[in-house]
Amino acid sequence: MIRYPNGTKYQPAAEKKRVSRKSKEDLSISASNRGMDLESDINLSNEWYRDQDIAVITKRPTPINIVKVDYSRGARITDAYFEKQSTTDYNGVYKGRYIDFEAKNTKSKTSFPLSNIEKHQIDHLKRVIKHGGIAFFIIQFQSRQEVYLLDASFVIDFWENGERKSIPYDVFLKDGILIKQGYSPRLYYIDAIEQKYFKK
Amino acid sequence: MIRYPNGTKYQPAAEKKRVSRKSKEDLSISASNRGMDLESDINLSNEWYRDQDIAVITKRPTPINIVKVDYSRGARITDAYFEKQSTTDYNGVYKGRYIDFEAKNTKSKTSFPLSNIEKHQIDHLKRVIKHGGIAFFIIQFQSRQEVYLLDASFVIDFWENGERKSIPYDVFLKDGILIKQGYSPRLYYIDAIEQKYFKK
Repeated sequence: MIRYPNGTKYQPAAEKKRVSRKSKEDLSISASNRGMDLESDINLSNEWYRDQDIAVITKRPTPINIVKVDYSRGARITDAYFEKQSTTDYNGVYKGRYIDFEAKNTKSKTSFPLSNIEKHQIDHLKRVIKHGGIAFFIIQFQSRQEVYLLDASFVIDFWENGERKSIPYDVFLKDGILIKQGYSPRLYYIDAIEQKYFKK
Repeated sequence: MIRYPNGTKYQPAAEKKRVSRKSKEDLSISASNRGMDLESDINLSNEWYRDQDIAVITKRPTPINIVKVDYSRGARITDAYFEKQSTTDYNGVYKGRYIDFEAKNTKSKTSFPLSNIEKHQIDHLKRVIKHGGIAFFIIQFQSRQEVYLLDASFVIDFWENGERKSIPYDVFLKDGILIKQGYSPRLYYIDAIEQKYFKK
């Protein structure tokens, strides 16, 4: 999935949809807004965690390959295309530790398909773990309205050794941490980090 | 020629790679060129540190605000503009610790002007320090062909309390760490991190 730059500012979902590539998932966004736009929820949560002085976690801007810039219009980009993120979408610091994660959603009720995870993301997360960082995925099961934190090691293991190209929902129940949802923050994912990585 | 708002040249990824490979092999590269393109030097150093399994540090892509996308041409961006980075340019992990820094160069021999550092970058670095991350600047004195690591606290202090809008060169001699330059890596800045933050 290609994600879009939002930098510091949160764009309303409607405006965002206009510039978004029309994927199957985009078109399915409908009735219940809450928890349906995972990226917006994470960005809002990050702003909240930053403002509350709890953690500093930011989204990496989408890499854009620029072909043409019009300087007569004040450095306006007139031709460019999206590139794939070579790492993950989010990283930052919590209690001095390095945090790195990728967020994905699925419409499936029974499993999370690995098809939209890139090999270089797996390589990146393996390196992060090797260097002592905290690496995980935030996976949203849309139809269940549930969001889980799953340590990257499980995803790496399924990616490299799994017979099927997906992670069964049961794995999330057993080894994931269900992320509490609310309004401030939208996703209490730092609580899940605390539970998984800091509690002895 | 395409230029980013900060005046650095824009190079397509492919061209960049070609140049870097050439410069790695061409040991007769002139001394005057060496270390003149700070961003390329840091990017090459980061690749080397990654490949040598020493650290995982990446450059955040330049944020672009997208106005118009032409889907009939396969999601081609036809109108967009550069945004200011709301954080710093680089972050990552070394020995489990969160690393965050901004890189700048100056032509001045006597001081580093604070004029091209944004307030939100100062705010960001203050937060990083507060949450236990390692935060610094990599400053290149072009005409001296010297590159220093200076802990962010000094820059924050000059920014907030300094009477003049620059940091004298003497501060770098006294409180900075001179970064060794070479070919692999171009900038031994992890050595400087080790010296500054890990050696007791």
